[in-house]
Amino acid sequence: MRRNESTGMNPSEIERMAAACEVGFLGIDDPDGYPRVVPLNFVLIGECIYFHGALQGEKFDQLKTDPKVSFCFVEPYSMIPSDWQTGEYACSATVFFKSVYLRGVGSVVVDPDEKAMALQALMEKHQPEGRYRAIRADDPLYDKALEDVAVFKIVPDRMTTRLKFGQNLSAEQRRRLIDKLRERGEDLDILTAAEIEKTL
Amino acid sequence: MRRNESTGMNPSEIERMAAACEVGFLGIDDPDGYPRVVPLNFVLIGECIYFHGALQGEKFDQLKTDPKVSFCFVEPYSMIPSDWQTGEYACSATVFFKSVYLRGVGSVVVDPDEKAMALQALMEKHQPEGRYRAIRADDPLYDKALEDVAVFKIVPDRMTTRLKFGQNLSAEQRRRLIDKLRERGEDLDILTAAEIEKTL
Repeated sequence: MRRNESTGMNPSEIERMAAACEVGFLGIDDPDGYPRVVPLNFVLIGECIYFHGALQGEKFDQLKTDPKVSFCFVEPYSMIPSDWQTGEYACSATVFFKSVYLRGVGSVVVDPDEKAMALQALMEKHQPEGRYRAIRADDPLYDKALEDVAVFKIVPDRMTTRLKFGQNLSAEQRRRLIDKLRERGEDLDILTAAEIEKTL
Repeated sequence: MRRNESTGMNPSEIERMAAACEVGFLGIDDPDGYPRVVPLNFVLIGECIYFHGALQGEKFDQLKTDPKVSFCFVEPYSMIPSDWQTGEYACSATVFFKSVYLRGVGSVVVDPDEKAMALQALMEKHQPEGRYRAIRADDPLYDKALEDVAVFKIVPDRMTTRLKFGQNLSAEQRRRLIDKLRERGEDLDILTAAEIEKTL
């Protein structure tokens, strides 16, 4: 896979984001030629994105032909009001963020062990407190469920990460934003200040 | 515009969601034939989506040809753990949500008044505390900014809304979820319980 490392987001940070982002956004063509965006719960396993759905309908019909698809997830950080930077002039208002974007080939997973592995990973992500019997392909409790659900996979051929934390500003301007954020003091502001600090 | 009202989400609820969702997701074709997903800040004005960007680059290059595009925004609600419904059997785990999806034609806005109107609406959404001079096309303070920024617009021809709050469950099962959510008692759980109640 060709990975764009221009922003310096390393693989462990991508994994942390994938674990933290509840919803990701699938890009797929619809039958009428529109690029369609589908929000869904997902897991990143290795370099692949997995999600599940029905054995019929839109996602299945499109993905069974192994199409070109894309996927995106985002962590929004603080809103930076314009008056922190440019007085009454509005155009410096911005929102900082981290995003991961990948594109590749989508497919329907047929191997029962791989299906069970992906569904178990979805459970571990979204129900971390446990309190269920682990999903395994050789457990009769899950025979029918594994037959009746579709599991989909994206094998990426390119991944792009973006960080926006004022890298276009001078060190002095960034330090001023850090002060302002810590003064406003919301949880997200403290995190955002720490991210800006990493750029200095 | 043809609107899918199957979920019963009314226009005022769509407007509330568009105002509450900081990030939306644009679906657009990329030059290599992949359906691309672009996260961005946006406003809904009337039935149209507006966002801004650079006068060069990916979004501009694609949107200047008035392509078919789509747009999506989502509000995630509570995660419903499997043991609330099916004991040790994992497959009832789910996440409730509201989503709005639309598709239509994207374009580059050229009228300065319409550009200023969209940028001012973005400011009012993302910097509700004010503290800036309103963006108007006839204000010399913003002459250069309005020339140097691209504003994009999607005129939808179809909008689909989705609500997932256990509508497939019996009234008794939904009442049980409401009790469980109020017992867990996080802010989002209280909101989710209220949404389930609306389905009864």
